[in-house]
Amino acid sequence: MQALIFDLDGTLVDTVYAHIFAWQKALAEAGMAIEGWRIHRKIGMSGGLFTRAVARELGRDLTPEEVEALQQRHGEIFIQLLPERRPLPGAIELIRFLYANNILFGIATSGRRPEINGSLDILGIRPETVVVERGDVLRAKPEPDLFLACQQRMGVSAGDCYVVGDAVWDLLAARRAGMLSIGLLSGGYGEDELSKAGAYRVYRDPAELHRSLDELGVLP
Amino acid sequence: MQALIFDLDGTLVDTVYAHIFAWQKALAEAGMAIEGWRIHRKIGMSGGLFTRAVARELGRDLTPEEVEALQQRHGEIFIQLLPERRPLPGAIELIRFLYANNILFGIATSGRRPEINGSLDILGIRPETVVVERGDVLRAKPEPDLFLACQQRMGVSAGDCYVVGDAVWDLLAARRAGMLSIGLLSGGYGEDELSKAGAYRVYRDPAELHRSLDELGVLP
Repeated sequence: MQALIFDLDGTLVDTVYAHIFAWQKALAEAGMAIEGWRIHRKIGMSGGLFTRAVARELGRDLTPEEVEALQQRHGEIFIQLLPERRPLPGAIELIRFLYANNILFGIATSGRRPEINGSLDILGIRPETVVVERGDVLRAKPEPDLFLACQQRMGVSAGDCYVVGDAVWDLLAARRAGMLSIGLLSGGYGEDELSKAGAYRVYRDPAELHRSLDELGVLP
Repeated sequence: MQALIFDLDGTLVDTVYAHIFAWQKALAEAGMAIEGWRIHRKIGMSGGLFTRAVARELGRDLTPEEVEALQQRHGEIFIQLLPERRPLPGAIELIRFLYANNILFGIATSGRRPEINGSLDILGIRPETVVVERGDVLRAKPEPDLFLACQQRMGVSAGDCYVVGDAVWDLLAARRAGMLSIGLLSGGYGEDELSKAGAYRVYRDPAELHRSLDELGVLP
């Protein structure tokens, strides 16, 4: 294996539950209350797919203005709830290890700059590392575009990449990109959900992934 | 089957994600940051087991004063986050149906009065229905005490009871009580997690359970 491609939220930083609750509150404020677990299982999809899925739950279409207002309100509540990003256990050490051992990796996230900058900074991601964000591609997960763009910019083949993600959307997108994948429990999915979506291995968090690199054939 | 025993949070009311985030914030404020997914998988245990599990994650014991302060702060944040309880889809209709058809049921929750009163009110639980709360028994889930107390007060045998719950703690406690159990996805566990913990059937929410009563042999 030549390279790792990491998702960001729920995979390297502990932000999933703040995102869920921020969506739940933004939707409830707008009179569109949806159960927490249904929001949880949609986190990590593209925002457009997410709001369309929400519309289906509600049984009516959302106007572009409603979608825009929801996304803005979600962002405001999220920052109030979680002003500081916290790396998941072992994430900083894993990134440092990959740099020290010249193991190629990139980041591919459904998030956008500037919102993701705080997470990249706290993880110690260097400017030379390929970071593909939502605005760089036409279609987000579970479409494979984010991972394919990351792989191309890193200059490796899809078959040489492992995707590391916490949501089934990462794992489905990885399969469609022709990449192997690794699931992390740190986004709150169950182990079987991740395995069934195609994860070759499931670990608890970046720390366990780090200890298990031998199982993956990515050590030099 | 003679009777149903329902858990409350995550099973009949949509409160799990607010509880998770309230715990995450209360712990972080106290300098004991713990990842969201680890908190999620502990929700529904007794508070004492929960704080002991937290202590193990932190690698040190918590003083009784720390435990008390954490529980109090969790309660404050929870009320701020979620001033109104929302029933899960179909919960009110299911309760109404059970009353209308004289199907015996009770509530057994790790929550306490007066905090749970709002949930009981919004669900239309009548005064004659058996409600066993944390303060009524010595040990909470995954110990079987809550369910056994509920069954005894309803006057039926354990083998005639179905437990309905959203957390593995409900299902483990049901097995120890000698009761069959049904899992609901509305607490955010995966289907396989619930099945492996012993659920005979897994449904999405109370609405799907209601439509499926035929599969359970509880219809008159």
